[in-house]
Amino acid sequence: MKVPRWKEAEFEEIEYEPVSIKQILVEMKNISELIVDLAYSAILFNNREIGEEVKYLEVRMDKLNYQIRILAMLAARSAEDAEKLAGILQIAEAAETISNAAGDIVKLLSVKLTHPILPRLLRESDEMIKKIVVGKDSAARDKSIADLKISSETGVRIVAIRRGDKWIYGPKGEVKLKRGDILIGVGPEEGLKHLNKFLKGEVRLLE
Amino acid sequence: MKVPRWKEAEFEEIEYEPVSIKQILVEMKNISELIVDLAYSAILFNNREIGEEVKYLEVRMDKLNYQIRILAMLAARSAEDAEKLAGILQIAEAAETISNAAGDIVKLLSVKLTHPILPRLLRESDEMIKKIVVGKDSAARDKSIADLKISSETGVRIVAIRRGDKWIYGPKGEVKLKRGDILIGVGPEEGLKHLNKFLKGEVRLLE
Repeated sequence: MKVPRWKEAEFEEIEYEPVSIKQILVEMKNISELIVDLAYSAILFNNREIGEEVKYLEVRMDKLNYQIRILAMLAARSAEDAEKLAGILQIAEAAETISNAAGDIVKLLSVKLTHPILPRLLRESDEMIKKIVVGKDSAARDKSIADLKISSETGVRIVAIRRGDKWIYGPKGEVKLKRGDILIGVGPEEGLKHLNKFLKGEVRLLE
Repeated sequence: MKVPRWKEAEFEEIEYEPVSIKQILVEMKNISELIVDLAYSAILFNNREIGEEVKYLEVRMDKLNYQIRILAMLAARSAEDAEKLAGILQIAEAAETISNAAGDIVKLLSVKLTHPILPRLLRESDEMIKKIVVGKDSAARDKSIADLKISSETGVRIVAIRRGDKWIYGPKGEVKLKRGDILIGVGPEEGLKHLNKFLKGEVRLLE
């Protein structure tokens, strides 16, 4: 049985990479903004793959919160420092609370009676969500999101990109796509299908 | 002393409007998606006005959670019903947890030692946030967001619109602007300033 990525992550040792409080806090902010959307999307589209990403991010958030606490304690040299750092930890705590709540939402994916009715209850528009991988033969490789005009050609917005173990949250137009990038796109079904074909390399042009 | 809007809302009686569980759940989902972004923005730009909107939405969320519990209890006719409804309440609970966490974040706006350092810690881009009101002489009145090409002309995305007491979360392109609408826009400072002039009616053209 393949161990899911979030479970693997749960048992990884915490590495003390030379990261700053700023880096961690920014990542926690970004995760907490993304994870709420992803959790509802997982329910809305009854999509377990997205649910797994939520669980993975929840585990990542736990680790970041642990790391930032350690860093804060090591950084405090005076009562004034400590008060400033307490405020930072308050934001970190809120970010983790948000990610735990998102985790609670995706737990419903495995509740037999409830989950089939939720998509109907929550759906407001015909938008869908899809994980799309950039293939090795794709004409999109090394082109930026803005140059490809993904949004105007397909109506799809890219909410996040996973590149190996790193996430790019809410990527800007200048981000260049790489082979193997996993995009999370939200938009009309037709647009997502077309973008998928293009990023796989099955069609050469997006328009 | 003027009582803030969220405080007024806290003491309003809960009205039993004829709303459905679906309507409430969709609104709770929308608020929980918006409120996280707004809370960080309030901190990032040290903006108390946005902080007030967060508090207002937090109070609104409390009420919605109360309403949906009542409705769920009245709707349950069998054990199977009750199980389905329990799942719905679990989402509602998570949405309220998220909004409370957002409220905790904006509380830091009044912590003297911490809040001045947070914008520097959290800022990643030069984007700003701004509340913009559609004036009575604006050329934007009764035009849609798409027709005005707000995004391509100014780089600003409209994250929400408040119209009287109603919110439109993540408005789509077809939404037409009305006099008195309060837009919350995120984007480059120049773009926000220009959009503000246009929506106030000080300039007639956006491009």
